[in-house]
Amino acid sequence: MREDFDAPGRVPANHVPLSPVSFLNRAAEVHADRVAVVYGPVRRTWAETGARIRAVAGALEARGIGPGDSVAVIAPNIPEMFELHFAVPMAGGVLTALNTRLEAETVAYILDHSESRLAIVDTQYRPLFDAALALLGREIPVVEIIDPQGPAPEGTGCATYEDLAAHAPFAGDGLPGDEWQAIALNYTSGTSGRPKGVIYHHRGAYLIALGTAAGWPVGHAPSYLSVVPMFHCNGWGHPWMMPIVGGKTVFVRQPEPKRMFAAIAAEGVTHFGAAPVILQMLAESPDAPAAPFDPPIHAFTAGAPPPPPILERSAAMGLDVMHVYGLTETYGHISQCLPQPDWEGLDAAALAERRARQGVAFPMLEGIAVFDRETGAPVPRDGTTQGEIAIRGNVVMKGYYKNPEATAEAFRGGWFWSGDAAVVHPDGYIQIRDRLKDVIISGGENVSSVEVENVLYRHPDVQTAAVVARADPKWGEVPCAFVELRPGAVADEAAIIGFCRERLAGFKTPKSVIFTEIPKTSTGKIQKFLLRNRARELG
Amino acid sequence: MREDFDAPGRVPANHVPLSPVSFLNRAAEVHADRVAVVYGPVRRTWAETGARIRAVAGALEARGIGPGDSVAVIAPNIPEMFELHFAVPMAGGVLTALNTRLEAETVAYILDHSESRLAIVDTQYRPLFDAALALLGREIPVVEIIDPQGPAPEGTGCATYEDLAAHAPFAGDGLPGDEWQAIALNYTSGTSGRPKGVIYHHRGAYLIALGTAAGWPVGHAPSYLSVVPMFHCNGWGHPWMMPIVGGKTVFVRQPEPKRMFAAIAAEGVTHFGAAPVILQMLAESPDAPAAPFDPPIHAFTAGAPPPPPILERSAAMGLDVMHVYGLTETYGHISQCLPQPDWEGLDAAALAERRARQGVAFPMLEGIAVFDRETGAPVPRDGTTQGEIAIRGNVVMKGYYKNPEATAEAFRGGWFWSGDAAVVHPDGYIQIRDRLKDVIISGGENVSSVEVENVLYRHPDVQTAAVVARADPKWGEVPCAFVELRPGAVADEAAIIGFCRERLAGFKTPKSVIFTEIPKTSTGKIQKFLLRNRARELG
Repeated sequence: MREDFDAPGRVPANHVPLSPVSFLNRAAEVHADRVAVVYGPVRRTWAETGARIRAVAGALEARGIGPGDSVAVIAPNIPEMFELHFAVPMAGGVLTALNTRLEAETVAYILDHSESRLAIVDTQYRPLFDAALALLGREIPVVEIIDPQGPAPEGTGCATYEDLAAHAPFAGDGLPGDEWQAIALNYTSGTSGRPKGVIYHHRGAYLIALGTAAGWPVGHAPSYLSVVPMFHCNGWGHPWMMPIVGGKTVFVRQPEPKRMFAAIAAEGVTHFGAAPVILQMLAESPDAPAAPFDPPIHAFTAGAPPPPPILERSAAMGLDVMHVYGLTETYGHISQCLPQPDWEGLDAAALAERRARQGVAFPMLEGIAVFDRETGAPVPRDGTTQGEIAIRGNVVMKGYYKNPEATAEAFRGGWFWSGDAAVVHPDGYIQIRDRLKDVIISGGENVSSVEVENVLYRHPDVQTAAVVARADPKWGEVPCAFVELRPGAVADEAAIIGFCRERLAGFKTPKSVIFTEIPKTSTGKIQKFLLRNRARELG
Repeated sequence: MREDFDAPGRVPANHVPLSPVSFLNRAAEVHADRVAVVYGPVRRTWAETGARIRAVAGALEARGIGPGDSVAVIAPNIPEMFELHFAVPMAGGVLTALNTRLEAETVAYILDHSESRLAIVDTQYRPLFDAALALLGREIPVVEIIDPQGPAPEGTGCATYEDLAAHAPFAGDGLPGDEWQAIALNYTSGTSGRPKGVIYHHRGAYLIALGTAAGWPVGHAPSYLSVVPMFHCNGWGHPWMMPIVGGKTVFVRQPEPKRMFAAIAAEGVTHFGAAPVILQMLAESPDAPAAPFDPPIHAFTAGAPPPPPILERSAAMGLDVMHVYGLTETYGHISQCLPQPDWEGLDAAALAERRARQGVAFPMLEGIAVFDRETGAPVPRDGTTQGEIAIRGNVVMKGYYKNPEATAEAFRGGWFWSGDAAVVHPDGYIQIRDRLKDVIISGGENVSSVEVENVLYRHPDVQTAAVVARADPKWGEVPCAFVELRPGAVADEAAIIGFCRERLAGFKTPKSVIFTEIPKTSTGKIQKFLLRNRARELG
């Protein structure tokens, strides 16, 4: 009888490759009259957005882009970038969205490594692109996005994005032959070493989008403010989610508080995603509205562990924050700090502590666990024993592009190893202690830099804090704090150290405090390798 | 470069077969303390429910159930039936849930055709099962569910479901080797001829559940009243959706209005699914609360086109109805009557007319279209030209069990042909006119029985209406109405015909009206083949 169940085969009626292109095709029909994108005076429905995407895909196909062809894009979050998240895959290509804050050298490296066959560049970044090409020593065909709302609305006379958008439409359904086909290539942010190219496939992109819609959950027809850069894990997959729920995406080009508050008010924003540093910026902005948002706005935060004080301030501002965790290698978020029924009685500070945890698996994930690095066994659920976070499921990357060694190293024993050190609380919630390389080992004890930073953030004068290891003849390593003070604040080293000593064990208390501007990547991640270098110079 | 993108292969870290068993495994962890099932005094969390399911799966495995083995279940909607939706697939088996209102002959046919290796039977249905076995002439191992809240809480001394639930737990993750593996076998309701066995696979079950959570949408931690029989398209896939969202399922065994209203009040029900006939029962029940539900309760309706008057009454009762459409062959619902922004200004009657449409594709569906049966071309979007509904996507059945001819006949030209006649409105919304075999052809004109029935339902004396063809020497066929009057109502044939004539073209107006009890299947579908037989006898 087993054979009888197996007999009916996959046919076009009952088997279709999973792809977010299907969501777009559907939205162009079923959400045809709903607004899909808003950007200043630009306002387009899903029918209009769908038609533009089909035109751009047709133009890409005419330029020879097909399966396995990388298309590099250098642009901020604007409607064109959003459209390319569908148009490039529809043509069969691989979207390679570059971090706009990279230096020319790294851009050249990525253009070369990705073998990009076409580059689509917002004119603001044309000088960066040209500098990269000069280093590369060869030409790549380029199409310019000329954004009248950008700072450099002048083209060089080459082909423009609007030329693509005026092309005859792509004819097919735009689905891949196999859902395992590459859809995007995302380079790691490179807090250390050369960026690696992370390959996403259509199946994973479909599942991150559908699973997030169900698991956040997002509801019907949200008004979504685009903040997370789309070059960062494709904006956490949110562009691919929007057609599922008929969402409206509101663009501001640069996520400055003033523009964001204006857009929230004008477009009735209900949802957005942003790194904790953006939440902090909003909470501390003089442009913040006097009363909390009512109803609250749903905010997704990730990219760095959010310090509890930032979560408290966000809640006070009327943000319902869902803290999530993930990596470039996992299409963005794969765990969520899902509220539990027994959290309802907690006070604001206790709730913020809970919400600062990385949480539990999203519905589309198969497993997230914390394993002892030596034995491979799960660590006990005691909230103190550290291990490494490991992840498995359909939203784990296909692998690193042209790097089978790194792929094999990342995939061991049936899991993807994250490089993040964490504990598991008795309720099963995971909490990151550190990137493994950020753990400070002082007198044989592990010190979580995140734990020390969370204490520093409670000090009223501290705006930003980062803690790294500093060599010490007696203890091996000791915690060294880098602090950015608020404007006008006067706390000195002794005050900060004293504040920490009252709240932390002696071996966790920073032995030195350096007041300085803290270097960050464009996605708000603190560049600890630079701070470690400085700590090394201090001896 | 294409090869470089293709090089990284599927490994356990990045590829896991899609299966609703994953949702259960996750819920047992992340929703551990949330209530999963409520049934009178029975109240179990997701951790407890997960543990019971693992035990039952372990017991099934010990009894030799594995991939491709059908397990027949005859039970109403109670927690055991819910658990079996996960326990049978976890053991690798194929859940074959039988309609409890079938006659012994058909039960025997299904037990034989499905080659069920084990039957799990609620003791209320033990006589039915025994009568079927007698017809079958052979034994099938049986396990009894003894429900203290059922009408026959006495076992025969054979193995009980609680024996299974006390077994050592299933050890593995319970995922299939291949997501294309069969998960369930659902027999068509057999409004005509022998039922056919529709095969569902793990991939489709995963997608119907996740797509419904995102597309209804369901939100977080709903309180769901179980009404749709789980032997009907596995309760529209809702049992598989509940672990995704940490939902609580409330059982009442029999969906009687009094029990339903009590459960709604006691458990704060937020969602349920039910056939239109159940909505009507609720709206007309003396037990209905005086004030409308506030906030409204989200109700999913399908199984038959809901007459607009029933939708109007449901809205007045505080039900936010999402009308959906599908077939056993499509895992239940695959289109939804998604509200559009421009519906907001409509009055109650106009809104009910809109909501009576079968609508547009759900997110997990690839395509739904209406094709001319002769040419295969899409019908114009004019709201009048009829064609046949065709469907494609990953939530279309694997095929009919042991019936390759019927499978090939259903899958033609890349689509599954539904057998339903429909039109497409200018906004792209599909509306069913009839099952193709229910269309009445009068003087060469197509008459939609559904259209005539919708008019009959507007008559204040009409409780239930069904219209079929009756042979006519002049016109070939004419509409013949069967009507169930409300208690105490006195309308006669002339009054009913006059009411229709004022509202319908002459050729659509019934030529005869028969007052009688209208036969229905257990899922509320009117058995028109019986009415056609009666109309034939009338000459």
